[in-house]
Amino acid sequence: MTPKTTKEIQLANRPEGTPTNDDFAFVEKEIGSPSEGEVLLKTLYLSVDPYMRGRMRDVKSYVAPFQLNEAISGGVLAEVIESNSDLLKRGDIVNGTLNWAEYSIVKANKVQKVDPTVAPITTRLGILGLTGLTAYFGLLDIGKPQPGETVVVSGAAGAVGSVVGQIAKLKDARAVGIAGSQEKIDYLINELGFDAAVNYKVDSFQEDLKNALSDGVDVYFDNVGGEVSDAVIGQLNNKARVVVCGSISSYNKAGGDIGPRIQGKFITTSSMMKGFTLGDYAADFKTGATDLGKWLQEGKLKYEETIVEGFENTPQAFFGLFEGTNLGKQLVKVADPEFAKL
Amino acid sequence: MTPKTTKEIQLANRPEGTPTNDDFAFVEKEIGSPSEGEVLLKTLYLSVDPYMRGRMRDVKSYVAPFQLNEAISGGVLAEVIESNSDLLKRGDIVNGTLNWAEYSIVKANKVQKVDPTVAPITTRLGILGLTGLTAYFGLLDIGKPQPGETVVVSGAAGAVGSVVGQIAKLKDARAVGIAGSQEKIDYLINELGFDAAVNYKVDSFQEDLKNALSDGVDVYFDNVGGEVSDAVIGQLNNKARVVVCGSISSYNKAGGDIGPRIQGKFITTSSMMKGFTLGDYAADFKTGATDLGKWLQEGKLKYEETIVEGFENTPQAFFGLFEGTNLGKQLVKVADPEFAKL
Repeated sequence: MTPKTTKEIQLANRPEGTPTNDDFAFVEKEIGSPSEGEVLLKTLYLSVDPYMRGRMRDVKSYVAPFQLNEAISGGVLAEVIESNSDLLKRGDIVNGTLNWAEYSIVKANKVQKVDPTVAPITTRLGILGLTGLTAYFGLLDIGKPQPGETVVVSGAAGAVGSVVGQIAKLKDARAVGIAGSQEKIDYLINELGFDAAVNYKVDSFQEDLKNALSDGVDVYFDNVGGEVSDAVIGQLNNKARVVVCGSISSYNKAGGDIGPRIQGKFITTSSMMKGFTLGDYAADFKTGATDLGKWLQEGKLKYEETIVEGFENTPQAFFGLFEGTNLGKQLVKVADPEFAKL
Repeated sequence: MTPKTTKEIQLANRPEGTPTNDDFAFVEKEIGSPSEGEVLLKTLYLSVDPYMRGRMRDVKSYVAPFQLNEAISGGVLAEVIESNSDLLKRGDIVNGTLNWAEYSIVKANKVQKVDPTVAPITTRLGILGLTGLTAYFGLLDIGKPQPGETVVVSGAAGAVGSVVGQIAKLKDARAVGIAGSQEKIDYLINELGFDAAVNYKVDSFQEDLKNALSDGVDVYFDNVGGEVSDAVIGQLNNKARVVVCGSISSYNKAGGDIGPRIQGKFITTSSMMKGFTLGDYAADFKTGATDLGKWLQEGKLKYEETIVEGFENTPQAFFGLFEGTNLGKQLVKVADPEFAKL
């Protein structure tokens, strides 16, 4: 039952522009036994996230770049199949930043135990994990939506955006989403209760957006950057807050990302823009997770997952983020557990 | 002695691109006598300011646009030469937002009396007036410089910028100025005590700037926008604050103002940018004026004025702002007082 080898996904090339299969290599490696304090983990689900594109560049940033010919790492849910630590036992489900691999050996204290009875375990990679917390802190700490204000979110049908709009509604603000298909627009309005949603891929986008924003924009939670953001920033109200969370439209641009300078609008409206990464709020994760968990249990938050099956399809799941093929959180299901009953 | 007519400067055309003489008309008008509660004022000095370019556009903004074929208005120092109000008497010096005219009749309560014994009266249009307050609130409320941090200011030798750098020094920060001539660079370093200053008009600007910013940028007070700001924003430290006060490089651009999108840098550094106009701080003017007055009397703040003589040269003084011909505050001296001894 104990595996002798594992496949892992390494960064074979630093992508120029849009990543392709050639940028990833599946490498088979021997795997030993866990030493004192270590556990052997079987990967069940892994999370693919837009920010990982940044780590594929050889540029200093808030997280170190992935190294060439080494495993890519990210959010993973795994099962303990062998333990050499008092902290974890066989069959435990854990969550952590782990290599993109079928099996891993890590120190037991580097992962967090997940209680599978609270909520489906995949929520720990989504609404109750880093993506939910990203929405929570970005919107509430930077955006600070007030009752009656208009909150616009781009990438609204994605993992972070869909939570942003719902929290905005919980705070009695008006939620306007921007997304890239009619299916997503319908989902935002009919399933998540957004007040309006606009498809940026149709010719009438600029006009549709203005119609949806007749009262202007008080908070803009930006996941995409580019021309979508140019259009929203043009509608900022006085003392608006722009939360810069992501810029997915630019991540695959090999050349520069050029557009209208925005500073003038910030002067005339006394508006504020702030970027952030989730690490800024590490000290407050517990508060955020508690609120998100409560809202989820009360039925006030909904979520969607798009799950690709099979470790070998991980690169395709990642590529899909940039094509917008996902609704909600994009996950890869790598395997079923061997011991745990979920 | 009482004038029968006055010349005023009207907006004859909305400038496209760089304003020219054709955009202004000198119009002679009859002037009556002050009614009950009014005063007849003789203009002594008037202030030309970059923000006025924005008011020449027919665009809704934080201040209403100037109207075609009506007088332009702005900051003015004047002498009361006839009073029909208990509030003011002949020979009083007043400050207010008045028409660009040699004489004006206004309600006495629309202007503020100036005590000419405290400081030269022209300081009320500069370091102790709106420009000093703009530097004070923008830097201290938004920029929040901490001891040892690096504060960069563009337009550093201008009316606002020169005060920003000096207040940064008062707060024990490192002050780095950006300006457009060697004379200005020398002035910033030798007269105002900036730690470094960089000339953006020389070929080595990008390199010079990087050398001056070996510790990066914690606060950027932006008066100019454009490529200068692109270069500074590229050097932002983690949790930097960008104070957007002006964008003079773009004011005369007829087409769009295009450049690299900046949002990505704000994400990776968790930085903040906020625009403002002085009206945001109206409730706190007294605090700011008190501090500025104290620092001036203690010799901790210095200032420079560039004074053009003659009402007829007002448009040229205004044009000069965009060519950077001014050191410190640009004023127009319109006339000497008739009754007051200054």
